[in-house]
Amino acid sequence: MNEFMDAAIAEARLGREAGGVPIGSVLVHNGVILGRGHNQRVQKGSAVLHAEMAALENAGRLPARTYRESTLYTTLSPCPMCSGAIELYGIGHVVIGEHQTFMGAEKALEMKGVVLDVLDNDECIQLMTEFIRERPDIWNEDIGEE
Amino acid sequence: MNEFMDAAIAEARLGREAGGVPIGSVLVHNGVILGRGHNQRVQKGSAVLHAEMAALENAGRLPARTYRESTLYTTLSPCPMCSGAIELYGIGHVVIGEHQTFMGAEKALEMKGVVLDVLDNDECIQLMTEFIRERPDIWNEDIGEE
Repeated sequence: MNEFMDAAIAEARLGREAGGVPIGSVLVHNGVILGRGHNQRVQKGSAVLHAEMAALENAGRLPARTYRESTLYTTLSPCPMCSGAIELYGIGHVVIGEHQTFMGAEKALEMKGVVLDVLDNDECIQLMTEFIRERPDIWNEDIGEE
Repeated sequence: MNEFMDAAIAEARLGREAGGVPIGSVLVHNGVILGRGHNQRVQKGSAVLHAEMAALENAGRLPARTYRESTLYTTLSPCPMCSGAIELYGIGHVVIGEHQTFMGAEKALEMKGVVLDVLDNDECIQLMTEFIRERPDIWNEDIGEE
């Protein structure tokens, strides 16, 4: 399990190194990473490529069964858009690095029967704490608050 | 109002002509189209670029206020992912071509206070009816059901 969160964190670090929002995600099926990505707001001027969306996009077209058997690892609690994508594709298990710096739509996911594991990972918390302090403007834009 | 649904339908037709899922969308602010797009599952192998997402992506990075003052026009009732994006960005008004061939997450949007107008547009219904009959495999994949 930590191997995959480590891969998500590696994506988040890539985002930070590029001056972007440091959130990363990987989609895992039967122990294999099918897709990986990080937030592309700054790098691609993207309003839709949050980390989870970037990982889903990187995974490409998949049959419904594959999504349903997959686990999505993400360094930060998934926002309503990413949670909606999780719901659309019926991903049943989401491992979340942390939800201290931002609480996403976890309640809605739980109501849909999605199993959530929150790790309270120190590096995930540190990445976001620093970014929010340094670039509150970009962060607020990313969550539709500014 | 019909001018903008016409623009969304024009996007849907572009999708059909390319062999893709015939759903289109435009984001409108103060009478100006800020972004437009159509479903890119077939054309780009995309799992995230539903029509609404493609329109948001095409609009680029926008301040929260702009989203909140905008109306999203879409030829088909928005799925959970697209509805989550609408919620994230606080888009307050969505005009829907039809919800007969697919009912999206309208109830969830209404519970969030989003104003929905459903037009029961004949061309929107026809585009989807024909596509679902001809390519049920792609359609089911697009909504996470196959």
